[in-house]
Amino acid sequence: MNTFGHRFRLAIWGESHGPQIGVSIDGLPAGIPLCAADFEADLARRRGGAAGTTPRREADLPQIVSGLREGHTTGAPLTVCFANADTRPSDYAAFADHWRPSHADRTARVKWDGRNDPRGGGHFSGRLTAALVAAGVVAKKCLPDVRFETRLAEVGGETDPARFDRAIAAAQRDGDSVGGVVECRIAGAGTGAGDPFFDSVESVAAHLLFSIPAVKGVEFGAGFGGARLRGSAYNDRIADAAGHTATNHDGGINGGLTNGNEIVVRVAVKPTPSIAREQLTYNAASGRMEPLAVGGRHDVCIAIRAAAAVEAALAIALAELIL
Amino acid sequence: MNTFGHRFRLAIWGESHGPQIGVSIDGLPAGIPLCAADFEADLARRRGGAAGTTPRREADLPQIVSGLREGHTTGAPLTVCFANADTRPSDYAAFADHWRPSHADRTARVKWDGRNDPRGGGHFSGRLTAALVAAGVVAKKCLPDVRFETRLAEVGGETDPARFDRAIAAAQRDGDSVGGVVECRIAGAGTGAGDPFFDSVESVAAHLLFSIPAVKGVEFGAGFGGARLRGSAYNDRIADAAGHTATNHDGGINGGLTNGNEIVVRVAVKPTPSIAREQLTYNAASGRMEPLAVGGRHDVCIAIRAAAAVEAALAIALAELIL
Amino acid sequence: MNTFGHRFRLAIWGESHGPQIGVSIDGLPAGIPLCAADFEADLARRRGGAAGTTPRREADLPQIVSGLREGHTTGAPLTVCFANADTRPSDYAAFADHWRPSHADRTARVKWDGRNDPRGGGHFSGRLTAALVAAGVVAKKCLPDVRFETRLAEVGGETDPARFDRAIAAAQRDGDSVGGVVECRIAGAGTGAGDPFFDSVESVAAHLLFSIPAVKGVEFGAGFGGARLRGSAYNDRIADAAGHTATNHDGGINGGLTNGNEIVVRVAVKPTPSIAREQLTYNAASGRMEPLAVGGRHDVCIAIRAAAAVEAALAIALAELIL
Amino acid sequence: MNTFGHRFRLAIWGESHGPQIGVSIDGLPAGIPLCAADFEADLARRRGGAAGTTPRREADLPQIVSGLREGHTTGAPLTVCFANADTRPSDYAAFADHWRPSHADRTARVKWDGRNDPRGGGHFSGRLTAALVAAGVVAKKCLPDVRFETRLAEVGGETDPARFDRAIAAAQRDGDSVGGVVECRIAGAGTGAGDPFFDSVESVAAHLLFSIPAVKGVEFGAGFGGARLRGSAYNDRIADAAGHTATNHDGGINGGLTNGNEIVVRVAVKPTPSIAREQLTYNAASGRMEPLAVGGRHDVCIAIRAAAAVEAALAIALAELIL
Repeated sequence: MNTFGHRFRLAIWGESHGPQIGVSIDGLPAGIPLCAADFEADLARRRGGAAGTTPRREADLPQIVSGLREGHTTGAPLTVCFANADTRPSDYAAFADHWRPSHADRTARVKWDGRNDPRGGGHFSGRLTAALVAAGVVAKKCLPDVRFETRLAEVGGETDPARFDRAIAAAQRDGDSVGGVVECRIAGAGTGAGDPFFDSVESVAAHLLFSIPAVKGVEFGAGFGGARLRGSAYNDRIADAAGHTATNHDGGINGGLTNGNEIVVRVAVKPTPSIAREQLTYNAASGRMEPLAVGGRHDVCIAIRAAAAVEAALAIALAELIL
Repeated sequence: MNTFGHRFRLAIWGESHGPQIGVSIDGLPAGIPLCAADFEADLARRRGGAAGTTPRREADLPQIVSGLREGHTTGAPLTVCFANADTRPSDYAAFADHWRPSHADRTARVKWDGRNDPRGGGHFSGRLTAALVAAGVVAKKCLPDVRFETRLAEVGGETDPARFDRAIAAAQRDGDSVGGVVECRIAGAGTGAGDPFFDSVESVAAHLLFSIPAVKGVEFGAGFGGARLRGSAYNDRIADAAGHTATNHDGGINGGLTNGNEIVVRVAVKPTPSIAREQLTYNAASGRMEPLAVGGRHDVCIAIRAAAAVEAALAIALAELIL
Repeated sequence: MNTFGHRFRLAIWGESHGPQIGVSIDGLPAGIPLCAADFEADLARRRGGAAGTTPRREADLPQIVSGLREGHTTGAPLTVCFANADTRPSDYAAFADHWRPSHADRTARVKWDGRNDPRGGGHFSGRLTAALVAAGVVAKKCLPDVRFETRLAEVGGETDPARFDRAIAAAQRDGDSVGGVVECRIAGAGTGAGDPFFDSVESVAAHLLFSIPAVKGVEFGAGFGGARLRGSAYNDRIADAAGHTATNHDGGINGGLTNGNEIVVRVAVKPTPSIAREQLTYNAASGRMEPLAVGGRHDVCIAIRAAAAVEAALAIALAELIL
Repeated sequence: MNTFGHRFRLAIWGESHGPQIGVSIDGLPAGIPLCAADFEADLARRRGGAAGTTPRREADLPQIVSGLREGHTTGAPLTVCFANADTRPSDYAAFADHWRPSHADRTARVKWDGRNDPRGGGHFSGRLTAALVAAGVVAKKCLPDVRFETRLAEVGGETDPARFDRAIAAAQRDGDSVGGVVECRIAGAGTGAGDPFFDSVESVAAHLLFSIPAVKGVEFGAGFGGARLRGSAYNDRIADAAGHTATNHDGGINGGLTNGNEIVVRVAVKPTPSIAREQLTYNAASGRMEPLAVGGRHDVCIAIRAAAAVEAALAIALAELIL
């Protein structure tokens, strides 16, 4: 449900257009230095502002309401809240019956008999990733030796970063959106993190990654490409006592355990489902297919902002497995 | 660790060459009809025997040692054991220091200070998927309206099933192995299964899928291919009040909840790491790179047998989310 | 840790003298009617104000910051926060080294290397039971057919309620405190709630009850008194098809499952450890036994206010087992 | 349900008269020395044989079927099975409709619509405590510095051990049974074990203790007696930097955390509900109150054998909190 983890345990709450979103983190060691400014860089990456990201602007000032004293964690749950300020709930009134394609409007309505909060996607909104990113910041503070490097690896099928802006601008001009792939490389996670049978590094990481809205694929190392190789080409031969390998098709994980090489993860993010163009889709009020115009403020390429959430999910996964 | 689930709860144990593997399943409704013969078809698919699968032969007779009375579940934990009969532990003595590439020999040794059972991969062996497949059989019995259709979608890069045997035979001839992709399509799962934020259908399914040895990628619907599309091409427009869509790029899942369309999952399985050809890799006993010959009995294409485990993992995920 | 439950899942946070305490509740059905006023009666019982309770006064206005729309639960996590207003942290500065007897000052300090928040007991404060009581209110809303009747059964060894005030007044006059026993009787819980082996009604209830500060004993039905009986006197003979029994020594629970009779629970609450009289106890700063005067504002009989927390814990236990 | 714990995780299964009971333990460190003989002493205590215990005789030979290699734990789940040999299922046929007083016959039947295994109490049988005791043996192996001392503190209201045999013999002569109290004292658990808010030592221990059939009360330190004291008499004044206290009314636990003093737990065990004398109770087959004769083989004082289970539960609780 809305909690995750045994050792680094999160509870997350909030809706896109409610008063507040937040996260409470349990299992933290005492004495980790932490302050509100530590959250700024990752929240800024998530917040967007670049071409292709939503014009919705939230100050995203984290309020730490428990678990911190004199600039250090206390060992009690650390809770971080974000007030929702820039809400425009009226943008979303129309979708109660005229469900947006590839959105959760209909599934959420069916699941909760129409009692769910539909405004801005409610609890399904990407807005909740601010809480995930905040938890990721705390996770990284707990893992000072682990280094994360996250980048956009694909935009709309382009793999050359020089072409990303162009692809986004073209989609925006057409009232459209584009998908992308986020890649994260992690060094310093050591050897032996992960637990058989069910809590492989891949399992725990993918569990968290697929909780990020719009993520539809996760692969480690060579992933789907590796499935096309022969063993003689794929196998990562070990080069020294520390387990370093010349190739890294396994993405730093063997038997579900980190092997000391770089962890490599790639995450497929679908194109933003909200697009400026009209879409012909079923309207339950009229019982007919009707053109739907999705107003509101949306990202052209949600993968740009998802990168911060991907990195946070991976940091949380490692904190869960290493702490 | 070796338990999974809240509502349909598994505990799994055993080693490749120990006396027994088994699984205990908690949370089952009482009154589900079940007998040993129900396990046969799926266990046979996992057991292999076709070209490209291991010559190791286990009778795989499931012993139901608790939770069943007069052919029905009782509501108490149902436990299924399999004796390991055809074990040849001496096959594996050499790998204590001369670690097999892309295997868990070294990571397991480091994690447990050499106390792990290394014989046949020990607890990391694909042998444990027999227990997973058994749990999947029980999960499917609990979901009589859900239908699973699982097939090999790729072998060694080939997507035309007519070419699969040829690819396998060629690899075998070369003392090599090939990877593959397994695809599962699921009908009848209804609308609204899955839980935000962390327990999306994708999250729970991927968690289980990545616990299967050799799985390195998971995608839903259009997955990585969908990340190359624009929203106008990707979006699944809704066609009727039941939520049917003309296209199914989202693979039957919106906002982490089933939407009533077919669930479509693709799983990347790496080439079997054990190959007949010698591999030059580090030997910790000598401190030198040395050729390693992996004896034992191995699959040329582990994806063939993984298909049964993939289907089982998905059945367990749905039982966890629907029961 | 600070989360509890699988089906009715709580995460709790806060410190006595921090900015806020709160609770997030997951697993709630959608459509439960709820408003801030629903919390008032139980919070008032917990807040005290009668003779023998602390003069600390908190307005205890619950702020519902997620999971509610148009007066009903949405199915997403419901989060309730309470601002801490009437804090006087300086009251507690002295106890860093001169640990209060029968308090957590020393154990918390050792556990978290002095990083814990010691002000007012920090995370160990009875203040957190406001969050527990709030969760209990929500649990009771989910169980409209279950009725709870909670009373003070003993104060300082007195079992006649007419003598309770006198016992408290006498202790207060002496600068002392008294313990007590809280009894809760629950009707309408039906037959068959509870799960073997580990999640008996008694197990889940006791787990929650013993999380309430100052609780040192829990018994069901005849409890410790029943252990002095013979089976012929103890056994609750069944009187009809609905399972009603003439006696109720088992307190409404057989084999860990509710049996349809009244659930009867008794909870031992120790005397408030903070007393007005000086206590000779070790001072780590001086390395000597020294008289300790505990200032601050304290209850003479914490059992009075614990009653609301006891009822809340039992409501949460039943929600976890019945929902 | 039938699993417990996050760090020292148990899954338990089996029925009184099925083929097998067992337990799988996850989270064990690798390298703990263990052999079948280690189980003998505690299983013998549980098995009984003394005056007042059941004449049912099980060899109780533990079969370790996973997780052990060369006499040490491997880090993978350790699974211990016990075959049920001395079963006489026909003893129990009569209770399907003529429910035994203070037994789970009726509650289990209602919960699982008559699909439960009623033979010998099925999954509710005290037989399953053999699996609990086995897990306790393993837990104690993981806690080499912790010492447990468990004794019968009361039998049928007698507190002088010299009178226990007499009380049991008198009850047996009368075709009756008696209850008792088990006391366990634990040294060496250190300071700071336990977790706020929900996982206090008392919470985790009581959760496990109340899963033992026939346990109806649990108290720590002075417990219910302490609730009759004043704070000035109850408070455990600290005597030195290590936190030793002259008195130990808190039973070694403050704020839910161990304080370094002896942990003292007392457990109320009800009289064995199966007695030789006839009991007049409702028969659902006839719709009338009718005399019920409970055959089978039963303990006069189940508290004698429960002592081993009590100690096991406490060892498991500490393993969960300390490992």
